[in-house]
Amino acid sequence: MSSTKVHNFSAGPCILPKEVFEKASQAVLDLEGSGLSILEMSHRSKPFEAVMAKAQGLVKELLGAPDNYEVVFLGGGASLGFHLIPLNYMRPNGKAAYANTGEWAGRAIKESARVGETLVVASSEDKNFSYIPKGFEIPNDADYFHFTSNNTIFGTQFKAFPKSPVPMICDMSSDIFSRPVNVKDFALIYGGAQKNMGPAGATVYLMDPERLGKSDRKISPVLDLKNHAAKGSMYNTPPVYAVYVSMLTLQWMKDQGGVVEMERRNAAKAKLLYDAVDRLPLFQGTTAVEDRSVMNPTFVMKDAALEPAFDELWKAAGINGIRGHRSVGGYRASMYNALPIESVQVLVDVMDEFAKKRG
Amino acid sequence: MSSTKVHNFSAGPCILPKEVFEKASQAVLDLEGSGLSILEMSHRSKPFEAVMAKAQGLVKELLGAPDNYEVVFLGGGASLGFHLIPLNYMRPNGKAAYANTGEWAGRAIKESARVGETLVVASSEDKNFSYIPKGFEIPNDADYFHFTSNNTIFGTQFKAFPKSPVPMICDMSSDIFSRPVNVKDFALIYGGAQKNMGPAGATVYLMDPERLGKSDRKISPVLDLKNHAAKGSMYNTPPVYAVYVSMLTLQWMKDQGGVVEMERRNAAKAKLLYDAVDRLPLFQGTTAVEDRSVMNPTFVMKDAALEPAFDELWKAAGINGIRGHRSVGGYRASMYNALPIESVQVLVDVMDEFAKKRG
Repeated sequence: MSSTKVHNFSAGPCILPKEVFEKASQAVLDLEGSGLSILEMSHRSKPFEAVMAKAQGLVKELLGAPDNYEVVFLGGGASLGFHLIPLNYMRPNGKAAYANTGEWAGRAIKESARVGETLVVASSEDKNFSYIPKGFEIPNDADYFHFTSNNTIFGTQFKAFPKSPVPMICDMSSDIFSRPVNVKDFALIYGGAQKNMGPAGATVYLMDPERLGKSDRKISPVLDLKNHAAKGSMYNTPPVYAVYVSMLTLQWMKDQGGVVEMERRNAAKAKLLYDAVDRLPLFQGTTAVEDRSVMNPTFVMKDAALEPAFDELWKAAGINGIRGHRSVGGYRASMYNALPIESVQVLVDVMDEFAKKRG
Repeated sequence: MSSTKVHNFSAGPCILPKEVFEKASQAVLDLEGSGLSILEMSHRSKPFEAVMAKAQGLVKELLGAPDNYEVVFLGGGASLGFHLIPLNYMRPNGKAAYANTGEWAGRAIKESARVGETLVVASSEDKNFSYIPKGFEIPNDADYFHFTSNNTIFGTQFKAFPKSPVPMICDMSSDIFSRPVNVKDFALIYGGAQKNMGPAGATVYLMDPERLGKSDRKISPVLDLKNHAAKGSMYNTPPVYAVYVSMLTLQWMKDQGGVVEMERRNAAKAKLLYDAVDRLPLFQGTTAVEDRSVMNPTFVMKDAALEPAFDELWKAAGINGIRGHRSVGGYRASMYNALPIESVQVLVDVMDEFAKKRG
């Protein structure tokens, strides 16, 4: 089966651009005529230092980050980030404010609560995280406010960002680079690479240096974001290949027109799918309409007994990865930057076909 | 330039087998006919679950580990491991014993000292880490004894492992899979992948479950080795591609005859190079002869003024990565499992040629 025939709606790791796969495959044999594979090259070599610098520069350029912001790529996933954030930003007798909007927000809260006082200032847990809390207050005396911009499992997304009187920290793992962001409003934006940015294995941290290193804690150097920034993301061996493939994907985004163009494409894909969900009586969205995620639309069949027949149909069409997470059920069609609208059309055609047969 | 013409003596990330590069390159386009790139595949997919299980099984099989030992692959490097070890193995009022044999041993000690009482029971710092301490005592009341089996920077290696009255923990980053090991003597063996096992981005932990989770500390789940083991190395998204390429490399080792054959090849390569160092009066080893590393031979030119001329010669021969670390100077020819003896012969030929000209 050729890779063009699979429509990959996987929630992450997820589809990346075809030309990125081609370059990434070639570099495993020979990085740009160096005679060496990217996998056997020292991270202190000139070619890899150039890759790292380019990746760091592209993160800032694509998001329009202030010049002085720092970019590091660490291993360990955003889950390690959940632990690093209170260590790096919460003072020993301070406290942190969090919004609880789903599974990953909840994990971040639990990690923070192990480190110090952690206030949940907003939550949508009462309705199985099917909406984004609004109009909540963030205390002036918190060390920071943390939220998750897009909830991969529950299919909700902050359309407008909160106004915060304290430094804002955002886990953008599943919608970073999907739309423009005012970076200067954030002390830290971070995210696992394995959605819009690259493969699994790297997490990007985009940090305001003015608001970094103020927690007054003794932090182990390997957990100290300021140390990693000071060492140019080379305190220890970085996840070389994940950084390289991220660099290729960031360059692809730039070549395509940047995050403004990504936002336009993502909006078109989301409209196509949500219109079908709303139009076809067999299907139903699972979230508040105004909070629907552009990245991870979730929906169910009103009659769950029809699921097996529907599953057969989309599998036959080459669609991959749309089974919903067990905490929501039904379907989740993750539509990251690199997913072409043609794949969404294939899914909508399958939905229409099924509705004709069974509706 | 084709990759076969470069003789890659890089200290890590380092050379891997050519057939691993070929399979690893293909999988970036299409993993085994799945129609999906390994980079876009969910870590919860059946194909990747099979990759993970195979990699875990091969680690145990190659090292002859007891059946009940657990294998996890984490991001963050062995540097994160330095922090995880005291958290997971040192009791709140306990203490740990360490051998200080070089840069990475020293970093492990510093991380442990941040967590609790840390005794340096052996050190070769007095002679710039040019030998392996012997005959030292490990206290009976330490929670564990930690050492570094091979010192990448200083070119020394434990030929016999210490006898310890307390659980032994070993950082084998730079010589794991280079020789047989009695795994049951160790509570934990760990190592960054980027030497003998695979690319940068994953660290392997091989653990005795009977001696895991006994530290009586509240550990954040993302730092808790017992949690990672219980979740089958899937507590959060693992470094998918680094695990995949490690699996390929482990399979290659098995196909070649396992660690016994690796040991035979490595001994032959080391003999070839050290014989030249000892035979040619221009050159001199930097370590105690009995402690010479089979993985990372280090040597200097007696007359440092000759270095530029020698450098020209080996560069012209396609040799890469033999400049010594700044803390030792001179040269370091890292000769990991995948480096063919033909590359060592090229280096020895260059040394001989230079000796003829300048000797």
